Amino acid sequence: MDQSDLTNVSARSWQLSERARKLTSSAIREILKVTERPEVISFAGGLPAPVTFPAEQMRAASDRILRDAPAAALQYSATEGYMPLREWIAARYSQGNVQIRASQVLITTGSQQALDLLGKVLVCPQSPVLVETPTYLGALQSFSLYEPHYVQLSTDDAGLIPAALTPELTAGARLLYAQPNFQNPTGRRLPLERRRELAAFAQNAAFPVVEDDPYGALDYRGEPLPTLLSMAPEHIVHLGSFSKVLAPGLRVGYIIAPEELHFKLVQAKQATDLHTPSFTQRIVHEVVKDGFLDTHVPTIRALYREQCAAMLAALERYMPEGVTWNRPEGGMFVWAQLPAAIDTMKLLEDAVAQNVAFVPGAPFFANEAQRNTLRLSFVTVPPEKIDAGIARLAALIRARI
Amino acid sequence: MDQSDLTNVSARSWQLSERARKLTSSAIREILKVTERPEVISFAGGLPAPVTFPAEQMRAASDRILRDAPAAALQYSATEGYMPLREWIAARYSQGNVQIRASQVLITTGSQQALDLLGKVLVCPQSPVLVETPTYLGALQSFSLYEPHYVQLSTDDAGLIPAALTPELTAGARLLYAQPNFQNPTGRRLPLERRRELAAFAQNAAFPVVEDDPYGALDYRGEPLPTLLSMAPEHIVHLGSFSKVLAPGLRVGYIIAPEELHFKLVQAKQATDLHTPSFTQRIVHEVVKDGFLDTHVPTIRALYREQCAAMLAALERYMPEGVTWNRPEGGMFVWAQLPAAIDTMKLLEDAVAQNVAFVPGAPFFANEAQRNTLRLSFVTVPPEKIDAGIARLAALIRARI
Repeated sequence: MDQSDLTNVSARSWQLSERARKLTSSAIREILKVTERPEVISFAGGLPAPVTFPAEQMRAASDRILRDAPAAALQYSATEGYMPLREWIAARYSQGNVQIRASQVLITTGSQQALDLLGKVLVCPQSPVLVETPTYLGALQSFSLYEPHYVQLSTDDAGLIPAALTPELTAGARLLYAQPNFQNPTGRRLPLERRRELAAFAQNAAFPVVEDDPYGALDYRGEPLPTLLSMAPEHIVHLGSFSKVLAPGLRVGYIIAPEELHFKLVQAKQATDLHTPSFTQRIVHEVVKDGFLDTHVPTIRALYREQCAAMLAALERYMPEGVTWNRPEGGMFVWAQLPAAIDTMKLLEDAVAQNVAFVPGAPFFANEAQRNTLRLSFVTVPPEKIDAGIARLAALIRARI
Repeated sequence: MDQSDLTNVSARSWQLSERARKLTSSAIREILKVTERPEVISFAGGLPAPVTFPAEQMRAASDRILRDAPAAALQYSATEGYMPLREWIAARYSQGNVQIRASQVLITTGSQQALDLLGKVLVCPQSPVLVETPTYLGALQSFSLYEPHYVQLSTDDAGLIPAALTPELTAGARLLYAQPNFQNPTGRRLPLERRRELAAFAQNAAFPVVEDDPYGALDYRGEPLPTLLSMAPEHIVHLGSFSKVLAPGLRVGYIIAPEELHFKLVQAKQATDLHTPSFTQRIVHEVVKDGFLDTHVPTIRALYREQCAAMLAALERYMPEGVTWNRPEGGMFVWAQLPAAIDTMKLLEDAVAQNVAFVPGAPFFANEAQRNTLRLSFVTVPPEKIDAGIARLAALIRARI
């Protein structure tokens, strides 16, 4: 037996964990690889528009940090995160009766890590985990490694329906996961009254309600609704991120949680990556500490509002009867529903052949999927291309009705 | 029931996962918190010396990257990592018959994340995991979240004894974890002949041998021994890091693995933190790409060699009979054995009261601990303080014999 035979025998025969065996390659990911071709108009991306990245501010901040505090910025640091950044975050969420403590804030390597840590600390195999219908695909990917039993919660065009959270449905759950602001994939925003109901539910629940809020700052009119955290600060686990308001490539997010859970999350994070890079945490703090976001975020809102309007206008102009979609008040996504007979996974293959792309809705459902749905992102496509892309997509749909 | 009562009931009653309930606070960590006081001479740190961080090179690299490629450096990027850095790593490990492919390299958020991903992908509850006696504490922390059954492997002053890897002992194992170069905590380096034996074992094993190599570049004479990877490239999972040769605060490490395992690790990483920060990966590449390490690493070696010599001289000068220690040929640690009756956990409390600190050996043992052992780091303590600190510690030990 020569070396190459041994190779094949050995690496392939290594036994994987149960959870790893369940990991499958995404068919969508394979199809979407071609969308990097410049001729493709892609509404598939979940990426923020790079024109919104404050590169010069980051450059100046990096330079100051490596000039003034190189040893600290380049050394190992506390698992909990950079204290001035934790304090800044706590202060930003504190107002009136609601006081968030820096001791509740854990800095994470992007919000995705927050999901992994919550799975680690809360989920056992077959634990019930409550999710919206549909829900964020990245959360499903994270939690699934801990092998939960998903329970899909009822939703309508306004999002989660708190009245449907019956004791029978929620018994034994380890967490409820929700994105109340401009949800990925639907773009839905939970109305004020439902927030009050969900916060009241959280106060009596035996498990945390997780409020994942990467898009909250991106409401087009600058009229945010109160967070669940502000309504029930000791009963909500709030996830935040600088990815959509500064830049995702720094991978800086955070978890705000009651101290009891915070300590466990810190222990889990220590075993997971010791700490988020000291340097990137300091860059974020240096850029935001003097109020930069107050002038910067409105420019992102204005850009996305304009591109969202262009997409809604194009949908109105081109889509045949039988196609419906929502009108987001913020965020990055429009959610569309096609006639029931159209499977958007199959539609995607034809669309890509016509140089237009989107994300099929099916992977965003934890259990039974609505296969006639799709997600459209407008944030990285200029208005004239939005019009052309939606026209192409509408023609394909029309041909299938 | 008022708001604060609800708080106490609720957050404390949230049910944690089995793995999280097993996480305990480290008594050592609590004791060592006081070692941040300036009057304490601490041999407890595992931190590299900040004088070795190339801050000016990092500053210039950051500036160039944010000037020339801000959109790419600040945007989401591939889970696998920054391709030029992956190619640089693959080339660095390729020589003669051994060709490492960029497609085998996954960039991780520090080496600690590599351990978490291996646990995720390979370890089920009660899976046998083979570890050295003692072994790296951080690896135990990572793997333990996946609830393995640890099997302690026989070692002597030269490290792991491959001849003791019998079929009975290794049956059903999911991985063997080893640090052949200047192991943390013992500073031991595995001799060439044992490397050959361990590589041969790996070629016939039904599980990967994981070669964790953060300290390999730090051999004081600049005469590295060949890696296990170079001896059995398709049978070894090799972990590397820029933490000890550039700076740990960037959190950039990597896994080299056969593609079959690599793909699974990529899927697991995607669910864990999407990707390591784009910016820090580019900084590392920008600093190392033109041969910087070839001149930089010898300066780190020279510093650590000198401080190691100072510690060995002080141990020789002050330690009473009955205390033994090794003479590392590289790395950051000396491992000492005290008379059997001395429990170094208890010794630590007295030592801290006398303003000198170390890490007790017990937590580095997966199962039965040798409680009369301790780890001494010399890299952040100047020679005159090393002498004073060891004198104090020796006096405490002498009083207990």
